[in-house]
Amino acid sequence: MKKIINDPNQVVQDMAEGMVAAYPDKLKQLPGTTVIARKDAPVAKKVGIVSGGGSGHEPAHAGYVGKGMLDAAAAGEVFTSPTPDQVFEAIKAVNGGAGVFLVIKNYMGDVLNFEMAAELAEAEGIQVEKVIVNDDVAIDDQSSRRGIAGTVFVHKIAGAKAEQGGSLEEIKAVADKVVENVRSMGMALTPCTVPAAGTPSFQLAENEMEIGIGIHGESGIERKEITTADEIAKELTDKVLHDFEFTGDAAVMVNGLGSTPEMELSIVNKQVQSILAEKGINVYQTFVGEYMTSLEMAGCSVTLLKLDDELKALLNASSHAPAFHG
Amino acid sequence: MKKIINDPNQVVQDMAEGMVAAYPDKLKQLPGTTVIARKDAPVAKKVGIVSGGGSGHEPAHAGYVGKGMLDAAAAGEVFTSPTPDQVFEAIKAVNGGAGVFLVIKNYMGDVLNFEMAAELAEAEGIQVEKVIVNDDVAIDDQSSRRGIAGTVFVHKIAGAKAEQGGSLEEIKAVADKVVENVRSMGMALTPCTVPAAGTPSFQLAENEMEIGIGIHGESGIERKEITTADEIAKELTDKVLHDFEFTGDAAVMVNGLGSTPEMELSIVNKQVQSILAEKGINVYQTFVGEYMTSLEMAGCSVTLLKLDDELKALLNASSHAPAFHG
Repeated sequence: MKKIINDPNQVVQDMAEGMVAAYPDKLKQLPGTTVIARKDAPVAKKVGIVSGGGSGHEPAHAGYVGKGMLDAAAAGEVFTSPTPDQVFEAIKAVNGGAGVFLVIKNYMGDVLNFEMAAELAEAEGIQVEKVIVNDDVAIDDQSSRRGIAGTVFVHKIAGAKAEQGGSLEEIKAVADKVVENVRSMGMALTPCTVPAAGTPSFQLAENEMEIGIGIHGESGIERKEITTADEIAKELTDKVLHDFEFTGDAAVMVNGLGSTPEMELSIVNKQVQSILAEKGINVYQTFVGEYMTSLEMAGCSVTLLKLDDELKALLNASSHAPAFHG
Repeated sequence: MKKIINDPNQVVQDMAEGMVAAYPDKLKQLPGTTVIARKDAPVAKKVGIVSGGGSGHEPAHAGYVGKGMLDAAAAGEVFTSPTPDQVFEAIKAVNGGAGVFLVIKNYMGDVLNFEMAAELAEAEGIQVEKVIVNDDVAIDDQSSRRGIAGTVFVHKIAGAKAEQGGSLEEIKAVADKVVENVRSMGMALTPCTVPAAGTPSFQLAENEMEIGIGIHGESGIERKEITTADEIAKELTDKVLHDFEFTGDAAVMVNGLGSTPEMELSIVNKQVQSILAEKGINVYQTFVGEYMTSLEMAGCSVTLLKLDDELKALLNASSHAPAFHG
């Protein structure tokens, strides 16, 4: 394991401190936790937006904390859900009196712990609503689908709605709309290594790739021989298009999983755009980069979000989060 | 070699097309070249800013093309200087009548080819000025120092000065000031593989790291056993501080070389900030992320730029480049 770390058991704490040190005017770490919040939280009368999950997906989730996006992100240990206590602290810290909205990726631990935190908050009189993101079409059964890169669009759009003064119900409605209209599919060339484990989560031969990987170092749904960027892009995009009828306008995200050079993401994007043009799908905005990673995994995912006028306006709204510029 | 590409000899062309496809409203590719320019180039009466170099450093250089930063970036083959012809095309495409300024990293091929292009342009009556960036303190002899991540600060500040209507002489003066006040130092945990070569540029054992690497897959000035993030951050920062007297305000860049997770960059940043605070250096702004990479190399560099009021204002000025948000 080659990593630039101090103590494998201290990486999340060190990272949280390093992030706040980079953006001291924008972010704060809640004392005794690895929750990162907007420096000015709670914002009075604004609905607070809280997300989070296991660490190792950076810039998700703390990179999306900022005006116009998340109010706080709870960071668990690497690939491990944050505890209910941490999420509860996040909820309390961002509650400005208008309630708190939770963006949860669909993993059993995340769902359980965020829901437990919501119950603790409601017992203290804080109104809480939530959305569970399940954009990963690698899994056929929709209720078991994982939340992956499409989650970033939920962060952006729910955050923009809250910044514009949206009520908890209005934010819930628009976040549900994003979840209904977003689909992702990923692949990997290499596994990744959780610092505290010290060895890769699976093995791949030099000529092999995994299709349909998640973002927690788990193996995918199919292992096959590495092919060209064009064929990889086509396989991911086709799977997304097959799952949902994309028509009209869409946002596209070509997301790197950690160690894929931006050169390769651009090469994938070339083919994705070409496929969408052929299908008559109008690309309203494209995002190419690392948005939802899996430590140093090599690979990428393709996300499509079908857009209406409301979603376009919210996607375009200003964001001050360090890792999402709008 | 595990890469998401089509043809190793076609990666730069594919990448250029994929980049423009991601930002069709902002960027254009000059026909018959792999030069990426602002869509609205040339901007009348504005000095055009041109940079570039070998590919494999993405988001450098084309990611810095946009209003407020570069007008064009010439992309050579991977780790290979762009030809004089390509740079000449870039110069002609961005010449709005006020002259063109070249930001060149200090590599023999880049310097020769950019200077040859400048001569071709001057022969056609285009006024050209230049700066050669040599921020890498790994090399003792200042005239042989390579341009690495500090180059991005030159792009930003020269670009902002041009956008504000600065003359060629004024831009030259402020770019020279950045070069005088910027220093970087890098290290790597792994080598990288040029697609057309197919094998890594050097070998490192599982417990080894290279200190003082460049960004072209070359090995460093010292090989040693991997140590902690805190010690690595201290070694890089001390070397930078030893080379130049940083006092007052500074900008800090903790740059990932391609496959270093953002988690690790944040951990390095924590220690860098702590060292600077001890030394009484006031950090005006911090940049943590991938700004000047070396394909999928694992490693990082630390850059410091001493700031005066002029440099602060230009660093803060608005940038519309895809990879630098100001």
